Amino acid sequence: MRNIRLDLEYEGTRYVGWQYQLNGPSVQAEVMSVLKKITGEDVKLTGASRTDSGVHAAGQVANFFTTSKMPALELRRGLNALLPDDIAVLDAADVPADFDARSASSKTYVYSVLARVAPSPLMRRFSWHVPWPIDLSAMNEGGAYMLGRKDFSSFRAARSDAYHSVREVLSVRITSGANEVIAIEVRGRAFLRHMVRIMAGTLVDVGLGRIPPSDVEAIISAKDRSAAPRTAPACGLLLKNIRYI
Amino acid sequence: MRNIRLDLEYEGTRYVGWQYQLNGPSVQAEVMSVLKKITGEDVKLTGASRTDSGVHAAGQVANFFTTSKMPALELRRGLNALLPDDIAVLDAADVPADFDARSASSKTYVYSVLARVAPSPLMRRFSWHVPWPIDLSAMNEGGAYMLGRKDFSSFRAARSDAYHSVREVLSVRITSGANEVIAIEVRGRAFLRHMVRIMAGTLVDVGLGRIPPSDVEAIISAKDRSAAPRTAPACGLLLKNIRYI
Repeated sequence: MRNIRLDLEYEGTRYVGWQYQLNGPSVQAEVMSVLKKITGEDVKLTGASRTDSGVHAAGQVANFFTTSKMPALELRRGLNALLPDDIAVLDAADVPADFDARSASSKTYVYSVLARVAPSPLMRRFSWHVPWPIDLSAMNEGGAYMLGRKDFSSFRAARSDAYHSVREVLSVRITSGANEVIAIEVRGRAFLRHMVRIMAGTLVDVGLGRIPPSDVEAIISAKDRSAAPRTAPACGLLLKNIRYI
Repeated sequence: MRNIRLDLEYEGTRYVGWQYQLNGPSVQAEVMSVLKKITGEDVKLTGASRTDSGVHAAGQVANFFTTSKMPALELRRGLNALLPDDIAVLDAADVPADFDARSASSKTYVYSVLARVAPSPLMRRFSWHVPWPIDLSAMNEGGAYMLGRKDFSSFRAARSDAYHSVREVLSVRITSGANEVIAIEVRGRAFLRHMVRIMAGTLVDVGLGRIPPSDVEAIISAKDRSAAPRTAPACGLLLKNIRYI
């Protein structure tokens, strides 16, 4: 059996998320359905990150096993020809049998906030529109409290089914880019369900002056979802890349 | 009568272009219809640039006359509340009676080429996918021949109804940005119909080695549309900004 790694980009707008679900189209199911057409096999596609409904990816990683003899580059071409235009395979490559997409050493997400009065037709699918002045240095100060290995129960969706809620956040960088977009880039080994979006919602409230930066520490210490502010909307979130050591 | 200037951003995907036409929705007609709801008047909205069907804008400028007493900022708020989400008013301001959006001193367009093998779900609405290696320095060399005041009949749509075809190109800059996107930025006093897209199509053929850079001079000298390569697709084009002196 060959083990094939796929690097994927997708616009999550019309999907229930990465993972197969009964209630709507998922990225995983779309790719598996095309793989079935190409290989004739019911492959099981394992993804690195279960992106939520509406979340985008520039660098999702997945792998599957197949007996197909098709060269990896032809496989990529075939997938891109048959996939809908909101999903693309950036790379396909043979990898060692023990490679598992879930064994990532770190994942990087970028949350985009459109910080200006007018909405943006060009950025509307890829950002959260926050039409009030935002204090970037307060956000950076608040972000620093999120670093390290901690119990992130406060930044965990009520429906999360993770066994325990200790995670390690490796970096939080907040930068102001072109077109009045503030990018919150978060890197960690793994994240709880909705964790990055709750971090983004919290940092935006810090930026708006609704909570002081130092309160982030207290919010985390509370280990209670109700201590943290709103979850930022899915459309602003992008899975940027996945690293394997 | 007050003269109001609007600065507009829009995603052109589902429009027949800026200008009112019988065969589909136009940006101009959408904005005029909302202005009618707000002011109660049949205003005539004059745009700086007649962007083609499918072309986007980050900085279109328009103006209209009204007897409405609504402050400009409230007008902006009302427009953004009522416009579809692919059109937004970035600014609304009272301007002198002699301001005419068409009297621009220059217009800047950016044409985006996605130069990589795999298509991009995230950029697909805003770029032309060219899946072959592109030589950026050849493109820059070719672009230099497009500078200055010339007869651009070769870069003019067959259906163009302009009286004469002499235009002045002030700058052509080709840069390689993030995500393997090549940006062709063109500034000029005015452009012929499809001119920027034919320039982009020509420069891409130069970048692909299909025509040598120096042929651009001969193509322009021919003063014949059939001498120039294909028109690049509309989705890659963005009206970036308009200057007035």
